[in-house]
Amino acid sequence: MPVDEAIQIKGNSIIGFSDASEGTESVKAVDPSTGNEIEPPFVSATSNEVEKAADLAHTAFLVYSKKSGVERAAFLNEIATQIEALGDTLTQRAMQETGLPEARIKGETGRTTGQLRLFATVAEEGSWAQARIDTAIPDRAPLPKPDIRSIQRPIGPVVVFAASNFPLAFSTAGGDTASALAAGCPVIVKAHSSHPGTAELIARAVQKAAQKTGMPGGVFSLLFGGGRSVGSALVSHPAIKAVGFTGSTAGGTALMKVASERSEPIPVYAEMGSVNPVILLPNAISSQSENIANGLHISATMGVGQFCTNPGVVFVKQGPEGDAFIKTFVQKMKETAAQVMLNATIRSAYCEGVNHLKNNSRVKTHVANVEQQSNGACLGATAVFEADGATFLEDESLSHEIFVPGTTLIRWSNKEELLKLLESFTGQLTGTLHATEEEFSEYSEVISILERKVGRIVYNAFPTGVEVCHSMVHGGPFPATSDGRSTSVGTHAITRFTRLIAYQDSPQFLLPDELKDGNPLGISRLEDGIHKSL
Amino acid sequence: MPVDEAIQIKGNSIIGFSDASEGTESVKAVDPSTGNEIEPPFVSATSNEVEKAADLAHTAFLVYSKKSGVERAAFLNEIATQIEALGDTLTQRAMQETGLPEARIKGETGRTTGQLRLFATVAEEGSWAQARIDTAIPDRAPLPKPDIRSIQRPIGPVVVFAASNFPLAFSTAGGDTASALAAGCPVIVKAHSSHPGTAELIARAVQKAAQKTGMPGGVFSLLFGGGRSVGSALVSHPAIKAVGFTGSTAGGTALMKVASERSEPIPVYAEMGSVNPVILLPNAISSQSENIANGLHISATMGVGQFCTNPGVVFVKQGPEGDAFIKTFVQKMKETAAQVMLNATIRSAYCEGVNHLKNNSRVKTHVANVEQQSNGACLGATAVFEADGATFLEDESLSHEIFVPGTTLIRWSNKEELLKLLESFTGQLTGTLHATEEEFSEYSEVISILERKVGRIVYNAFPTGVEVCHSMVHGGPFPATSDGRSTSVGTHAITRFTRLIAYQDSPQFLLPDELKDGNPLGISRLEDGIHKSL
Repeated sequence: MPVDEAIQIKGNSIIGFSDASEGTESVKAVDPSTGNEIEPPFVSATSNEVEKAADLAHTAFLVYSKKSGVERAAFLNEIATQIEALGDTLTQRAMQETGLPEARIKGETGRTTGQLRLFATVAEEGSWAQARIDTAIPDRAPLPKPDIRSIQRPIGPVVVFAASNFPLAFSTAGGDTASALAAGCPVIVKAHSSHPGTAELIARAVQKAAQKTGMPGGVFSLLFGGGRSVGSALVSHPAIKAVGFTGSTAGGTALMKVASERSEPIPVYAEMGSVNPVILLPNAISSQSENIANGLHISATMGVGQFCTNPGVVFVKQGPEGDAFIKTFVQKMKETAAQVMLNATIRSAYCEGVNHLKNNSRVKTHVANVEQQSNGACLGATAVFEADGATFLEDESLSHEIFVPGTTLIRWSNKEELLKLLESFTGQLTGTLHATEEEFSEYSEVISILERKVGRIVYNAFPTGVEVCHSMVHGGPFPATSDGRSTSVGTHAITRFTRLIAYQDSPQFLLPDELKDGNPLGISRLEDGIHKSL
Repeated sequence: MPVDEAIQIKGNSIIGFSDASEGTESVKAVDPSTGNEIEPPFVSATSNEVEKAADLAHTAFLVYSKKSGVERAAFLNEIATQIEALGDTLTQRAMQETGLPEARIKGETGRTTGQLRLFATVAEEGSWAQARIDTAIPDRAPLPKPDIRSIQRPIGPVVVFAASNFPLAFSTAGGDTASALAAGCPVIVKAHSSHPGTAELIARAVQKAAQKTGMPGGVFSLLFGGGRSVGSALVSHPAIKAVGFTGSTAGGTALMKVASERSEPIPVYAEMGSVNPVILLPNAISSQSENIANGLHISATMGVGQFCTNPGVVFVKQGPEGDAFIKTFVQKMKETAAQVMLNATIRSAYCEGVNHLKNNSRVKTHVANVEQQSNGACLGATAVFEADGATFLEDESLSHEIFVPGTTLIRWSNKEELLKLLESFTGQLTGTLHATEEEFSEYSEVISILERKVGRIVYNAFPTGVEVCHSMVHGGPFPATSDGRSTSVGTHAITRFTRLIAYQDSPQFLLPDELKDGNPLGISRLEDGIHKSL
């Protein structure tokens, strides 16, 4: 493809610098605001094409893993430029495929390009690789000390599964792709069938950027596929060395199984969601009732509730002040119009989840207009439920994630019960605490529990809105993610697709620049146990 | 137990500050130099005792995870002191249980205490936790930027499986225990049945240190158990959050399976060994034949070949210079006396492995006095085999690890064949290259292959002798280890038992000291994207 040809959606997978369309099956995107199919059909990749993409990624790794941080940064920056060049074509297609409003798509595009450029600065700067040097002591007794130097090196080709709920920031050139490319790993993206046109547009932008910056073809591929077979075949392929995934628990755990049953098991970073407990302590509610109700309303309805960090379970103390708070909150939720959800699968899970709670005799329904539907649109209306602590402990389904613009309020009667309720949680992405200064001390055990259960603790704010920065942790113990040691948002993610390598007594010219004498890259590194920054 | 009571071997498991001996089964150690049993019997832990140790470790975690780096350092330093106080009692018992000579046991004791003290300096200094701060920008448009701070926090109670081949440095208070305790995780050690008395002595030293430095009892426990049931029960327990293991592939992969099938899968760091390919290039041999033969002889026979980094497969080019080198090497190996191996299981695997090669018609046997045996001693004699490249590629058994004082020499005819042979390897702990300056460039593909296959590349030296330092990587892709991202030797290991946590808009007084404004600990950290060292 000549570099300057206008980008068109052809419905083909992209393997390096070539299109791929051997397959006989195909899927079309659906406009969730009308229920109508959108042209063109997207051809599912064949097993031969999976093989081709994986082999090409392996070949590309041999070249791409040796590119300098400056070269990788140029590639990432050029991807951002090429995504911006897609302009309105991208915005319109993404809106049509997802039902998300223009401001959101434009915001998410900015987040995606910003993320690519942030990883570019990290790759270019170079300190991320944790270079360490222990110099030789040839006359040490009884044995000489050798020269040892170590660094994080790219792990190999990575498969990234795009998410449905962030068609840009967690998809084709989203966080996992950006961090893998920044680390020096080629990427094969398995497109999400909910926004294939968006995926192809972005993939062609990546392809252009690879060509413009002299990267090997196999540094990036995008494969389409309707069911799970393309994804499983990719994860099973011996050339693949790690997996990034954002999606359902069922999808994530299935990939974990495939990866652990390979003859060479590989790491899977699956972000599978959570209900993000929010604890509202009594004095915080007394003093900030309106503010908290407002903030919770915005957080619970953001993105039609289709966020991994949606505040799904909120703990409010029993009593009149809690009742008043709930009344204010419920009123705001009632006044919120239904909005278009991402696709029919998500809407059907939403209906099922909401109806399950609605039909639960121990759960009080404040709002739940789930039947709202018009002109074939996939509408999601707000929902608010309430139950007591005993019900929450006895009915596990109350702690299951549903993508819903709403939340379940759990009433607790005393600190002992609250702690018991919080102890019942499995791993979560976030935990949020609203408290006054005195309550932080009075309820310190709450923080202690959250530290064992979540990836991010939020104080007097709300969990939605995951800042892309150096310190962000978007992770948490299983089942929030498959690997609670890592993060899928923020620059710390660059290390997830690496492994440590040490070089013993290496000649200088064979060392990565990060490890050479004299620190030619001017990075922060550990030299004989001393942290040195330039 | 009063702190100053003399330490005795009682044959009991140790759960926190108490002895445990409910069980009805027991095992005795065997002196491998005589085949005789050694008193006392060691009582296997019951499932009730496993439960108790795990529950106590959970309780201890709540306290120990909040201890400062300075407090954890004091504990680690005191363990080292208490181990030294065991003096000759420890040396004699370890020699008797392992057949290892006094110099080795004393050297390994020094390595173990040195390792504990090195981790103490890292815990005390504090920069290891990768503190990151992104400060708030309240007036950012369109949305304010929150204050986000993140850090590596201890993951929870850790189970450590002691290794047979390093009764001190990779056992009860070895590398995994030191790194877990340094990070803030309680440890339960499953003792190795090959040196239970050594394990108990060390455990009582750890127990004393915990008492002296005011640590909670459950910060450390030691359980005995003959088969795999105690280990499996520990790894299955919900309170346990990570596993460290050094041992066989069968043992390690069994634990990986148990851990992945839990309702909350947990990380397993299993170091399962490798054959550590050594590549000798022709000009290196021409110019350094005698030196290389000497070094290889020392490396191959060190520890009676019972090292994970034993150079199991050595690539020598076909031709007269290679023949001459082999002649010199074989002569040295022939002159080396048999030595006592660790135990009957290891000796029987050694006999089986050596006889398998000896009976392979495509393999030439240079040395293999496997039948050597005297007075019931578990003797291991040197062995040297030779085969051509085609045989190596066709017979997978040639790349299986055997604990043997010796090696298999593989002859290659040209660079193309050498690269093919190296590509055939699965993950290895180390890869070693002997080359002249010109050969490094001429054979650069060799280094490129090793970078994909091994955890440590050694130049013109030998893989045995794993330096405990900041830069060491004792790891490598599966099957060398279960998780090639990490290392089990050196201070980098402190992060393997941690996970990332972020704090959003946290009040200062609730933050870990590492993340507080003004950097009270004076650590290196990332502040708004800038690496700052004090």
